[in-house]
Amino acid sequence: MTQPQANQPRALALACSLKPSSESSSSDLLARQILDALAEHGVRGSSVRVADHVIPPGVGHEMSDDDAWPAIREEVLASDVLLLCTPIWLGHPSSLAQRVLERLNADLSETGEDGRPIMFDKVAVVGIVGNEDGAHKVTADLFQGLADLGFTVPAHGSAYWVGEARGGTDYQDLDEMPAGLEGNISNLARNAAHLAGLLSRTPYPAPPSD
Amino acid sequence: MTQPQANQPRALALACSLKPSSESSSSDLLARQILDALAEHGVRGSSVRVADHVIPPGVGHEMSDDDAWPAIREEVLASDVLLLCTPIWLGHPSSLAQRVLERLNADLSETGEDGRPIMFDKVAVVGIVGNEDGAHKVTADLFQGLADLGFTVPAHGSAYWVGEARGGTDYQDLDEMPAGLEGNISNLARNAAHLAGLLSRTPYPAPPSD
Amino acid sequence: MTQPQANQPRALALACSLKPSSESSSSDLLARQILDALAEHGVRGSSVRVADHVIPPGVGHEMSDDDAWPAIREEVLASDVLLLCTPIWLGHPSSLAQRVLERLNADLSETGEDGRPIMFDKVAVVGIVGNEDGAHKVTADLFQGLADLGFTVPAHGSAYWVGEARGGTDYQDLDEMPAGLEGNISNLARNAAHLAGLLSRTPYPAPPSD
Amino acid sequence: MTQPQANQPRALALACSLKPSSESSSSDLLARQILDALAEHGVRGSSVRVADHVIPPGVGHEMSDDDAWPAIREEVLASDVLLLCTPIWLGHPSSLAQRVLERLNADLSETGEDGRPIMFDKVAVVGIVGNEDGAHKVTADLFQGLADLGFTVPAHGSAYWVGEARGGTDYQDLDEMPAGLEGNISNLARNAAHLAGLLSRTPYPAPPSD
Repeated sequence: MTQPQANQPRALALACSLKPSSESSSSDLLARQILDALAEHGVRGSSVRVADHVIPPGVGHEMSDDDAWPAIREEVLASDVLLLCTPIWLGHPSSLAQRVLERLNADLSETGEDGRPIMFDKVAVVGIVGNEDGAHKVTADLFQGLADLGFTVPAHGSAYWVGEARGGTDYQDLDEMPAGLEGNISNLARNAAHLAGLLSRTPYPAPPSD
Repeated sequence: MTQPQANQPRALALACSLKPSSESSSSDLLARQILDALAEHGVRGSSVRVADHVIPPGVGHEMSDDDAWPAIREEVLASDVLLLCTPIWLGHPSSLAQRVLERLNADLSETGEDGRPIMFDKVAVVGIVGNEDGAHKVTADLFQGLADLGFTVPAHGSAYWVGEARGGTDYQDLDEMPAGLEGNISNLARNAAHLAGLLSRTPYPAPPSD
Repeated sequence: MTQPQANQPRALALACSLKPSSESSSSDLLARQILDALAEHGVRGSSVRVADHVIPPGVGHEMSDDDAWPAIREEVLASDVLLLCTPIWLGHPSSLAQRVLERLNADLSETGEDGRPIMFDKVAVVGIVGNEDGAHKVTADLFQGLADLGFTVPAHGSAYWVGEARGGTDYQDLDEMPAGLEGNISNLARNAAHLAGLLSRTPYPAPPSD
Repeated sequence: MTQPQANQPRALALACSLKPSSESSSSDLLARQILDALAEHGVRGSSVRVADHVIPPGVGHEMSDDDAWPAIREEVLASDVLLLCTPIWLGHPSSLAQRVLERLNADLSETGEDGRPIMFDKVAVVGIVGNEDGAHKVTADLFQGLADLGFTVPAHGSAYWVGEARGGTDYQDLDEMPAGLEGNISNLARNAAHLAGLLSRTPYPAPPSD
């Protein structure tokens, strides 16, 4: 594993389980596994369990005195790779994953001094787990939302596990990581690290000034 | 308007605006307009602004001492028509609409004494507003989720307004209801009231006992 | 099984496999199994393998001299239950399932002498198979499209099988029908037959004339 | 406009209108407008009207003697940017856009001599038009499908126009391009050209050999 360095790229995982960290979570487990794979490519990572924090609904930067979003937003802004991990509920991203998108949306039109959206040059990847079914649709919702917000999506940027139809197994209760998922995570991490490196060294150009 | 009667069918609107009722909301306005149209067909309605209530994430019937969901759930169970109204955020149902689906999901396998799912014989309709784009996809997500949960979806069961691409107008700021939407709401209400009446008088049969 | 009768309700299955009937198809197999279950409730069924027919793209009633759609459309109009069965490709309904929706769309604004959309009073159900993942999303797309077109969606109106993530098994190669799917199909058929009966005896009312 | 050069990046637009090129098409118009914007960044483009060609359903590389897909596939493989343009039908990508994804899917597991998927290092962008509603959902379906296939999605990689709910205007009948769309296309082209340049000069690394 590459040694940490001052200018090392950073990944932030937002684990959008409905459960706080007092309970074990499959999407949190997957988040940590993907962060481990990113670390093998020199990307330093940290993780936030979204359900541990007060993140009120709303479209502003700060919705209440105890709003945890402003601090999480700072971590997003400081990262080169955003990893959004979510369980699947009724075939959809969790309400907390959607909450994260809604709060990020407050920055939709924010630009830096250079006239570029502040989320530019960041790579977004997703991790998705469910007892059964829904990974491709959740990927679709998240990729579209994140690309709208200014993130870039690498090839094979979604890592997922779901069981057979009407299955009842939780990802975290599998005896071992399925071989297919291991390759999936490995590819995601290699591609995300590569793309984040490219965009970090050579950012998107600014729009021409009027 | 038909006079209220003891056995009159009931509609419950859940308005999933990100804003509490201290602020005016387009999805809440649409909810009330649809309830008015249902009333013309003898369906008595009431409305809940979801953001006014503490509804924690989770998959149980009651997630905390101050959880407002158990009371809302009772209102859902007492209704014949569920109207889910939501704004569109990033092209998706609001996080509060998804929260409602997640909490309803706790009743996915609940059956009554007759062996039938407890949500059977209820009709689900949706109302959707956005500055631009997303109504059909939000309809898709909600219809699929609600049909999975045991609701029945009437013909033309979605009423919506969205503006032109990249438009900035809120539904509640329109000078008047667009004629197309008026017909849309009228059809939705007529069909929902009809179907709820049919299912109320002649419920789905129970599965054969083993 | 109930004996066929003159006024017996009818189901039409459109199996949207990418393969013609010279090749065996999982979605076609599921279509026949669902039709069998409907027959137990007195619904007489027939099935069309869509890939056997020339159905050109377009939005008119008849797109070419050899267009097979007008004949299929007649069968749709003569049916009480429409069963749309599709495989999942890239997490989406097959291109032939979408083609069917597009061709049905030509009747979106068609009304009968009574002023009612000609697709009213028909029940739509879906059957979905894939090696892995996608059933809920395909259900969502189809329910929304079919409800827009005037069909009514019964409780639990989607029957599906998908394998574990990255699985390679075809539904038709399973040794036997999974117990969960058997119950799923049974519920779908009971509910669809019930709802089609209700709407056949007591159709949606016409809109008030101006 | 930059002069064409031997090693100039290339864009291929696949316009998935339901109509052949004997009829004018809004999605084809948008495709040409996006290609023009890409040309300003030195990306040379060409366009294929998918409905002009025989592209049978199926999952193989060549489905019939008159199958036009093998030739189109060669053009995809020779391009650095794939632009998928589609109208919205029933809120979904057109059946021809889904057909393109299905045919591309035959290459899902194809790798080059270097062990890398053959679609790697290519950038995918989308253009979407509809009378009303559906652009974000169609974007979601296409981004997810294309990223699964190995394409990379740039920030703001979707350009779209839709009218107000229940609107009847075709994009090609607008008097002029809306200012918002002009900026949208300009951003898409600048970002796609930049990202394609980065990936062309510094391709995704190959997976480690076993």
